[in-house]
This record gives sequence, structure tokens and C-alpha cells, in this order.
Amino acid sequence: MTSSFTRADGRSLDEMRPVSITRGFTTNPAGSVLVEFGNTRVMCTASVEERIPRFKVGSGEGWLTAEYSMLPAATHDRMPRESMRGKVKGRTHEISRLVGRSLRAAIDLSQLGENTIALDCDVLQADGGTRTAAITGAYVALADAVAALRERGVLTGDPLLPPVAAVSVGIIDGRVCLDLPYEEDSRAEVDLNVVMTESGNFVEVQGTGEAGTFSRDQLNAMLDSAEIGCRQLIAAQKAALESPLKG
Amino acid sequence: MTSSFTRADGRSLDEMRPVSITRGFTTNPAGSVLVEFGNTRVMCTASVEERIPRFKVGSGEGWLTAEYSMLPAATHDRMPRESMRGKVKGRTHEISRLVGRSLRAAIDLSQLGENTIALDCDVLQADGGTRTAAITGAYVALADAVAALRERGVLTGDPLLPPVAAVSVGIIDGRVCLDLPYEEDSRAEVDLNVVMTESGNFVEVQGTGEAGTFSRDQLNAMLDSAEIGCRQLIAAQKAALESPLKG
Amino acid sequence: MTSSFTRADGRSLDEMRPVSITRGFTTNPAGSVLVEFGNTRVMCTASVEERIPRFKVGSGEGWLTAEYSMLPAATHDRMPRESMRGKVKGRTHEISRLVGRSLRAAIDLSQLGENTIALDCDVLQADGGTRTAAITGAYVALADAVAALRERGVLTGDPLLPPVAAVSVGIIDGRVCLDLPYEEDSRAEVDLNVVMTESGNFVEVQGTGEAGTFSRDQLNAMLDSAEIGCRQLIAAQKAALESPLKG
Amino acid sequence: MTSSFTRADGRSLDEMRPVSITRGFTTNPAGSVLVEFGNTRVMCTASVEERIPRFKVGSGEGWLTAEYSMLPAATHDRMPRESMRGKVKGRTHEISRLVGRSLRAAIDLSQLGENTIALDCDVLQADGGTRTAAITGAYVALADAVAALRERGVLTGDPLLPPVAAVSVGIIDGRVCLDLPYEEDSRAEVDLNVVMTESGNFVEVQGTGEAGTFSRDQLNAMLDSAEIGCRQLIAAQKAALESPLKG
Amino acid sequence: MTSSFTRADGRSLDEMRPVSITRGFTTNPAGSVLVEFGNTRVMCTASVEERIPRFKVGSGEGWLTAEYSMLPAATHDRMPRESMRGKVKGRTHEISRLVGRSLRAAIDLSQLGENTIALDCDVLQADGGTRTAAITGAYVALADAVAALRERGVLTGDPLLPPVAAVSVGIIDGRVCLDLPYEEDSRAEVDLNVVMTESGNFVEVQGTGEAGTFSRDQLNAMLDSAEIGCRQLIAAQKAALESPLKG
Amino acid sequence: MTSSFTRADGRSLDEMRPVSITRGFTTNPAGSVLVEFGNTRVMCTASVEERIPRFKVGSGEGWLTAEYSMLPAATHDRMPRESMRGKVKGRTHEISRLVGRSLRAAIDLSQLGENTIALDCDVLQADGGTRTAAITGAYVALADAVAALRERGVLTGDPLLPPVAAVSVGIIDGRVCLDLPYEEDSRAEVDLNVVMTESGNFVEVQGTGEAGTFSRDQLNAMLDSAEIGCRQLIAAQKAALESPLKG
Repeated sequence: MTSSFTRADGRSLDEMRPVSITRGFTTNPAGSVLVEFGNTRVMCTASVEERIPRFKVGSGEGWLTAEYSMLPAATHDRMPRESMRGKVKGRTHEISRLVGRSLRAAIDLSQLGENTIALDCDVLQADGGTRTAAITGAYVALADAVAALRERGVLTGDPLLPPVAAVSVGIIDGRVCLDLPYEEDSRAEVDLNVVMTESGNFVEVQGTGEAGTFSRDQLNAMLDSAEIGCRQLIAAQKAALESPLKG
Repeated sequence: MTSSFTRADGRSLDEMRPVSITRGFTTNPAGSVLVEFGNTRVMCTASVEERIPRFKVGSGEGWLTAEYSMLPAATHDRMPRESMRGKVKGRTHEISRLVGRSLRAAIDLSQLGENTIALDCDVLQADGGTRTAAITGAYVALADAVAALRERGVLTGDPLLPPVAAVSVGIIDGRVCLDLPYEEDSRAEVDLNVVMTESGNFVEVQGTGEAGTFSRDQLNAMLDSAEIGCRQLIAAQKAALESPLKG
Repeated sequence: MTSSFTRADGRSLDEMRPVSITRGFTTNPAGSVLVEFGNTRVMCTASVEERIPRFKVGSGEGWLTAEYSMLPAATHDRMPRESMRGKVKGRTHEISRLVGRSLRAAIDLSQLGENTIALDCDVLQADGGTRTAAITGAYVALADAVAALRERGVLTGDPLLPPVAAVSVGIIDGRVCLDLPYEEDSRAEVDLNVVMTESGNFVEVQGTGEAGTFSRDQLNAMLDSAEIGCRQLIAAQKAALESPLKG
Repeated sequence: MTSSFTRADGRSLDEMRPVSITRGFTTNPAGSVLVEFGNTRVMCTASVEERIPRFKVGSGEGWLTAEYSMLPAATHDRMPRESMRGKVKGRTHEISRLVGRSLRAAIDLSQLGENTIALDCDVLQADGGTRTAAITGAYVALADAVAALRERGVLTGDPLLPPVAAVSVGIIDGRVCLDLPYEEDSRAEVDLNVVMTESGNFVEVQGTGEAGTFSRDQLNAMLDSAEIGCRQLIAAQKAALESPLKG
Repeated sequence: MTSSFTRADGRSLDEMRPVSITRGFTTNPAGSVLVEFGNTRVMCTASVEERIPRFKVGSGEGWLTAEYSMLPAATHDRMPRESMRGKVKGRTHEISRLVGRSLRAAIDLSQLGENTIALDCDVLQADGGTRTAAITGAYVALADAVAALRERGVLTGDPLLPPVAAVSVGIIDGRVCLDLPYEEDSRAEVDLNVVMTESGNFVEVQGTGEAGTFSRDQLNAMLDSAEIGCRQLIAAQKAALESPLKG
Repeated sequence: MTSSFTRADGRSLDEMRPVSITRGFTTNPAGSVLVEFGNTRVMCTASVEERIPRFKVGSGEGWLTAEYSMLPAATHDRMPRESMRGKVKGRTHEISRLVGRSLRAAIDLSQLGENTIALDCDVLQADGGTRTAAITGAYVALADAVAALRERGVLTGDPLLPPVAAVSVGIIDGRVCLDLPYEEDSRAEVDLNVVMTESGNFVEVQGTGEAGTFSRDQLNAMLDSAEIGCRQLIAAQKAALESPLKG
């Protein structure tokens, strides 16, 4: 990683874009967060439903589900609205499932009672890394929803587990770059999304050779970079949660 | 209308909630506006597509289309996402069509070239009057999109027509109330949505006896109140468009 | 409104097309009516289902729902069948909802028991005004279904309220015309649908500037004309219901 | 077949219900027929579309397609509308395909030019035999559509082939009965639908052991009965087509 | 039928293609059969579900249902996958219904308890006669599923009825040919599918004049040929069921 | 990894199940392979379509797409057929996308001409590892399809790249196990799918903490095990491709 390489936005290779987490973004859901990774902006909400899906009935546990979606005008060229097409795209399904699995690592379902927490991650503006921003913001919305349930006396224990955050890393022109905006993402040879806990363990590791393959050494370098990003994101999550919730 | 009646938020009967119009809310679409009527918040975008639908081919004209949608957590109780249900609700279709018809009254399609303007009105937070806020905000997004097209030299003439704005009026306990929040809307006997131009003419008048019928006199009183609201909204649209667009 | 203006079918400006209401058009549903406004022909049926939708359970009330549809060959050019497209058009949804709201103004749901009345309005031949004919005919089918329920002893009280009828009015070349056939409808500047009760109150008022806007004075002139039409339709409904039901 | 057996409607075993064929039932499609077999009533229309489906392009031939559907209130208990369910039932598909194949035996596609004839068979009232009534009525609608095309000079040759008609036969309590109403159809052991040409040849033979199997002798007895019915139906088709078309 | 006519594969006119029935083809379903008619290969499985559909509740009987499907690459040119299209084709529905009706003739539902047997017939390779192979193979899968239920003590009686098999016959260049491969099927004037029991009775007879009509004599000749085929298939079914089931 | 741990099927921790690759499994598609990993059996076909999707038009390149699906009776309990549900499950979309990305790493699209290769991976029997078996088998089907295109003279160059294979690894009771059957997969704490090229580079790495998280050391141990499996699979692919193709 020589100093001669420059990223379009002037960042160093393992530098995150500016990260912003706004709690209480809307007021109806139990948790509502606007998360920003640079120009990527995702609204993450956590709604509580006092029921559980059929396959959990009798388990004595709660459930957590997630849906990810892009607003039609979030991207540079408007995309058709999935509800009007009558079909959800495979990419949307794939990311919704990833968000759900990732956040279930941040909640002890046995302490949730027979409640379902529904996470909605709606991308208002897309500039790369929308799924990782969604996971990172959703944790904060989840924390606020759990706090609301505890305040209302619905829960006696505390199902919330330590933070989970996610970041993307890519290889561009052979260099490992952290937190790719769209312009970089679209020309990356390799793309890795990492979901990590506060203790540094992995929840998900998804690496894809979009335009090439990657060696074990490259994977290791990307994982090193991802850890830098995730630690910074977890600090941002904790800082956001320590400040008083507006409203 | 006696002084003894009080609205929950302290407004007088023909007083609007605070109105806010934020241009340049997101940067990818040609026009992007966040419109707020009290706690109702709608993101309105105008995207330009350099093609026209089949039924307009050969007409020498452009087209304008609109889609309205609620985010799942916009309401007090989370609603299922329409894309996941695989079906768009009748209410959504009905409002999308209303927004499209209303805004086509604000554009001269013969001056638009073979372009389509796609308006997307996504409700981030719902507290009554979402369709009227959507129409009011969409005009400003449309104006910005037309300006962008003219700046890029795509259009030589100016297809934008004078402002169109919309407001709801209802009858609650026999009194005509302007701009209903959800709490009032849900117990109104009659609900009237009015779309009006700057000249005071109507584009749409939709009155519904949700829980009762209404007399000609009541209709007239509601139309009077709506005019007050629309004039104020048009002033807000013009003020927003006169200030420089951020970004 | 000068006498020099002539309508293609020779009617005066505030004259309805010939109206015909045939009860007992088919025999399986509890109420079955063929309603004709000139060449527009709609089959309206009222079927009784001894259950209520989930959102009414525990309310002690019944429900009324409506579906409007056009047969594929009802129009001049055949339209694709919605069941084969896999999607219901927005226009269809919009009209179904209008018919349902309108007819709920003609029934006291608290007197209906835990029954649902399903109204189906299928357009056999379309020549303008299909939604207003549907509402007008559906009232008669509803009356017959309620009578059948009472005859079978299912109902002790009488949930049927006084008649509701609907008519369209438009502005063509600046003149207010009542009950538009397709040829007039397609070139009207403004289109107003009015649903009215026997007492002269409004259930719905839907005015649309299809190709232009309309002033308060024009709205008033159209409402005057609509009242003439609705009164005539209500007389026709009552006459139809007074004659013995064939079969 | 002893004389002691009596059918509920008093018919003899190989007697058809009263058959009625009304041409010009509606005016928009090129051919429009109301066909009645007793209480079964089907509206059959033939619409001309000046295009051919993709798989026929370049063939120099036309095409004929058919859709069968039941109105929701056609049956004793209302059935959900297929467009609202979002899915077409297998039974509907099966009958639509049968009607299409049957009527393609009545048209010389090579004489039709690059036109498609779309047949729509909508059951207004169902009392057994709806598919056979649909086929029988559709032939007459097809004949009128072809005549209209020839009158307009679109066709120089005559693609219409001799009549095709259809009837059902069943075995009830061991006896062969012609033209089953619903009450008989629902308790028949075997059900046979036969589509026949004027020359006595078969277009389709579909026999089903609904509640039992059937021997070769029983099949022969049913085919004999079906021939009686089809000959009578073809006579009715020809009589209908010989009288002048109203309107 | 002169000796000068030769079929592409050298068979005589009333000779079946080689038939193979492999039991225990897969191990998860209660019955699993690979059936081959020449190059046509269909996997037929019978799965037991310990519930019955709503319309059978309270009947004291079980139910049998069937689904037929083609894998996308089963045919010479790949066909779009129905699940991705979001719609099932009419042909698929039609055949699924035929398989279900046919196999219900091979089971005494009153002896099945409140269980549903779900038959799945998935065509791995298509070379004509897929629906008849599916029915023939499904009987064997059904027999194995019933045997498994009896072995597990779920059933005390024996609901299995004697064999049902199916074959296609066609008329090509005026000659009656048994068991058509794709090449023959695509140029046959008439196509007849016959489902027969061991006693020689019919369950289904479906004859279609694909490119012409057929006389009573031709129908009789085709039925004679079909009987030859079905008897041979039933012998193959019985032979397969007499050998021990692998696994 | 102590010797005291035993797997239900007696394998050592880094031992694959028996692998079998059968080419020419069916004859219609250009490539057709049955791949077996123990009891998991997947039919993989490669079909050639002489067109490219819209987004590739003008690129001068070909395309490769993949669809994965489970037959309803592939699993222990029958699953509803996705075509009948009208919706494809998220899991299916996710795996289809994975297979497509993986195999695009095995083809040089610029050497493929304007052709699309459609891979279909249909699971006949599922016992864990279906997605990895699908990828492994699809490579062989792809190789056969490319060979067929070259033989037919459609391609002059050779777009086929060296083999790509995939395997799953999991952590069970703290031990890293290679190639999990269903019984192990369902109780694994962590699940990793690795897609690797012959050179030992990664195409995809997807690790998921299904019931827990995993450390960097555990990830490394799983990657080591996966490499053992992939090298063995690539040897099996090459051996299969070296033997002559039957038929």
C-alpha cells in the first residue's frame, strides 16, 4: 500500500467515510435511526409486534426479522418499485436475509418473550455500502426498541447483546480499500462484507470475486481492514446510544 | 364555529399545521424534496427518464407519472410491506393516481419533449394528510427537475405551470377543521381533499362521507376552508423555490 | 348554455340517457340487477356470506364489500383480462373502493348481524358512466338481498337505508352536460361524479380536471345538474323496487 | 333405459334442456352472443385484434385464442374473483384451453390474415354444462366476427368452417343422461364432454370417471347420446345465424 | 395399416417404447419412482402429509393431490422456469388435474384416514407421453407410500385399488400409432390419452383433434390400440411392485 | 481435533462424503450432469440460448445465468412447490445468485459470442451441501456445453476457464467438520461455504454464525479444511471430464 494511490474522495486506504447515526429519526416505531456512511443514507426502524411467527409458537422465544429495500430514486438512475413489479428482486431478498441473520446475533431471543421485532432498512440515498450501513444502523434501532419494551415493563430481563456492525472492503487496482462508495464498488475486483461483534468475532463474512478471484493473503488483508472499520463503527454506535434520545 | 371548540394541538379551525419544504433532500434524483405538514413527513422525488410510455409514442409529448407509498413503519402500527405481499393495496393505487392527475395539471406535456418525469412520494412518517402533503411537495420536486432539464439544455421552452397544492378538510363534531392529523382524521364524519391551482381553480375535489353524509352548505364551508389552506401552501412552495437550492 | 349546442344523441344538457333497472337478472345471488344508462350495461349482484372479515370480528356488526370489473369485450377495443395479467389495474381498485364506500352509506351495519354482503358490479357493455350505473344498480341489488335475508328470518331489524344513486357530470366546450356517454367523456375538460342520498345529501363528490381546471362557479353548476340526475335515478330505483320481483 | 327413471326437470334421458342463442347481445365486439342451455347462461364474444402472437409471426396465418371465466356470483355460493386472488384456477385454464382448441377446428387460420380472434366466454349464470354452452355460443360469435371482417373488406376469402358444437353426457345411477344441469352433474358417476362438427366427426372427446370408471359399452352409449345433442345444437346455431342480426 | 409404413424408431404401429420402472429412486418421500417410456423420464414421488385440505375436514376421508411439472431443461429448447415467471402455465395445471383425477381412481379415500398423499411428477427428460408416463409411475409411487403407511401402523385397512395406467395414441398420416415420442406427437393429426384400470375400464379418455377431426371408427381403432398399451403397462407396474424395494 | 469425536457416518473431520459426477445424465441440454455428495443429488444442466439479456446488448460479450431449485419431495418433509406458491423463496434467490456468480468465474464471457448459457441446478434429493454440489456439478455441465458449442463451430476460441468447485465446512461442538450432511448442518454453530478455483484462489467465501459467532482462528481452520475438500472435488471434476461422454 504505497502512498502514491489516492482515492477520489481523498481518504486513505483504511479510512471510513464520515459516519453519522441519528436516533429518533421518526417517532412511530419503537426504534428509528438514520444512519449515514458518507452519502449513503439508510432509515432503520425497529417495530415491535406482540406475536411470533408460526414456526416459533411453543418455543417460549421471540423472533427478529428484517426487510431491506431501496426507494426507487435512491440510486443515480431510478429503479422500478418492487411493489409495482409484483416481484422482489433476488438482491433484495439476499440482503434482507443477511440483515436478519446479523441482528439475530445481537439479541437473546429467549429473553424477548413472545414478541417479534421487525427491522426495516429503507435506503433513502445509495452510494455503496448500503447493506453494511443498514446492519450498523439497525443495531441502534434495535437497542432503542428493546429499551422501550423494558421501560414499558414488557420485558424483565435484557435481551440486547453487545453491538454488531458491518463494513465493506474491496480490492481496487490490487489495493485493499475500506468502505467503498459506489464509484469504487463498481470497479472493485473483489468485494468483502464483514459483520463483526464488539469482541472481534465474526457474525458473517461474505467475500465475492466480482471480477476476479482472491488469494488467502488478500482475504487476510481485507479482514484486517474490515476490523479497523467495524471497531470504529461500534464506537459510533455506542456513542450514539449514550447520548439522550431526542423526543 | 364557536370559540369553545379546541383542537388537540391548540390550532384554530382553519389553521394549518406548521409546513416545511426542504429542497435537495437527496441528491440522485433531479428533484428531491422533504415536505412536512406537522408530523407528516413525505419524501418527494422527481426523476427524469428519457423515454415515454407506449401509449404516448408518436404524440410528440412527454409524460408524467407518480407513485405513492408508505414505508412499513410510517404508521403507528407497522404495516406489511407491499412488495413482500406481492400486491399493491387499492388505497395506494388510488392515491398514486390522484397524485399523477394532480401534477399533470402543473406541466405542459407538449413542452416536455419525449421525456417522462417519474414522481415518487414515499411517506416516512404518517400523521394524516399524507396525500395532500405528497402533492404539495411533488410540485416543488417537479419544479426542480424541470429546472435541471432546462439547465442541461434538454428543454428549450418551459413546461412548468403555476403551482398546485393540496389540503384536507374534515367535519368533526359538526365543525369544519382544516388539515387533519391522524387523530382527527380517524373520527371525522366527512373528509374532503382539495387540489387547487394558484389562480384558485380546482384540479381535484374529493369529498367522502366516511361516517355520514354532507349537505351542500357543508361542502361550501369545507371548500372555503380548503382555499385558505391551499393559498398558504402555494406561498410556502413559492418561498421554497425562491431560495437557492443547497448542493 | 345556449340552445345552439346539441349533444350527439340529441339530449338536452341536463337530460339523462334512458335508464333501465331489471331485477332478478340472474337467480343464484340474493340480489341481481341489470342496470342500463343508455348503452352502458352493468350486472350488479349482492351475495350474502355468513361471516365477517377479521377486522370486524367482535364488533357485533356486519360488513359490505364491493368489486367492480369490466368484461374484456365491454369496451370498443378489447382489454386484457385482469385475472390473466395477474394484476388488478389501479382504476379498477379505485372504483371498487368508491362503490363500497357509497353503498355502506345505504346500510346500517349494526343491524346486519355477522354477515357480509358482497356486491359485484360487472360491466357487460361500457359507454361512459359505468361507475355511476354500478352504484345505482347495486343499491337495488342490495335492497333485494336484504329483503331475502329478512324473509329467511336471518334479520329481525331492517338495515336498509334510503336510496343512494350516482351520476356523472362533465364540462364539454364550456358547457355542463349530465350523464356523459363515452364519446363525451373522452373529450370532457372536467369530470364530476356525485353520489347522493334521497335527502339530497352527498355521499361522495369526486371532481377531476382531466384537461383543465374548474372554478367554484363551474363546480356549483355541475352539482346542480348532478342533483337533477340523482333525483331521477332515485325515482327509478324506487319504481323498480315497488314492482314485484320476477321469479 | 327404462321409462321408470325420471329426471328432476322431467326431461327424457336424451333430451336437451331448452337452448337459446341470442346474437348481437352487446355491440362493441365484432361478435357477441348470449347462449343459454336451460339456466346456464354464457356471454360469448369474438373480438378482432390486428396482430398475431409472437410464435405465429412470419407464418402468414392468423390465430384464435379463448378465455373462459365465471362471474363471482354465477354459482350458488359466490366464488372469489380470480383477478383479486391474483391467480387463475386450474379449472379455468383447462376450460379456456379446451374452448380455444375446439374453435380452432372451426376456422381456417391460413385464410385469416395476420389477425387474432379473441373469444371471451363469461358465465353469467352457471347450472352445469358451462363449457359446452361456451363452445356452442362461441361458434356463433366467431361466425359474426368473420362476417364483420369480410364486410369491412379485411378478408377476401372465407376462413369460417362448418359449425362446431359441444354437449355433456353423464351416467347417473347407471343411466346415460344428456346435457346435465348442476344437480345431476354433481352426482354423476361419469362425465363426458363431446365437441363435434357438422359432419359428425369429433374435435374433442373428454370422458372422466368422477366417481367410478366406465366400460367401452358405456362410452359408446354416451357417444350416441352426445351425437343427438350436438346435432340439435348445430341446428340451433344455423338457425340463429340465418336470421338477421339485430342492430 | 399396411406393412409399408415404418416408424422412425422401427416400432410396429401398436408397439410400446421400452418401459422401465425404478422404485426407491430417491429416499425421502414415502414412494419414489423413476418411470421411463423410451427417452421420456419422469420422477414420481408420493409424500404423506398428516392433514387434509379444508374442504375434506369432517368427511372422515383422506385426500390425494398431484402436481406435474417439467424441469426447464427437460425439453429440446429450454423453457422458462414457472416459479420464476410467477405463473403456472395452463398446460401444467391441466396435466396436474388429470394426474390427480386418475390416481384418485386407484385409492379408496375412505380407507386413508385423515392423511393427504401428495404426488409430484417432475419430468427430467421429455420425449412425448410425459403425462401418461407420469400417471403410470405415480401408481407405483402411490403403492409404495400406502405400503409404508401400513407398515408404520398408520393404516389398518388397505386403501390401494388395482393398478391404473395411461398411454397416448395418435393418428399420423392416417395410421393409428401407439405411444408417441415427441417427433410423432408434433405431427399427429389426432392425439388420444387413455387412462385405464386393470379390469379394462376407463378412468379418463381425452381425444383431441390437434390438426383435424376424427371419426367414430378412428376413435374405436385408437381405443383398441390404447388397451394393448395399458395392459402392457399394468403388467410392468405389477412386476415392479413384486420385486423387493431396494434400500 | 481429538480422535474421540466421531461423525454419524464414520468419516474423519476433514473427509468428504463419496462424490460422484455423472455426465450425459439427460440428453436435451448441451450439458447435463448428475452430481452426488453422499445422499445429496443435484441435476445440473447447461443450456445454450442464442441471445443475450438486454443489459449485455452491444457489449460484444455473452452471459451466464443460473437457477437453483429444490424438487418438492427432495427434503424429508415435502415443501410446497414454488411455482404453485407464486413466489420464489429468498433462500432460492440467494443460492441462484451464488451459483451464477461462481460459475461466471469459470467462463470468459468475451469469448462466448452473443450467447447465454443457462445453468439449472435442480435438487432431486437433499442431504446438506446442495448449493456446493450444485456449483461443483454445474462446472462440468458448463464444460460440456462449451465443448458442444465448439464442436458445432459456434465458438472459435475457448471461453472455458479452469475448474471451480465448492464445499461447506461447519463447526459442530467446537470441531471443524468438512462437507456437512443435513443432520450435521442443522446443529452446526457456524457454516462456511467456499468456492475455490484450481489455483487455490477464492471465488466466494460465505461464513455465517448460525448459532454463535466465530473467531479469526476458527475461520482459518475452516478455510484450511475447505481447501482440502475443494482440491478433491476439482480432481473429481477433471477425472469426469477426461472420460468419454456417453451417448
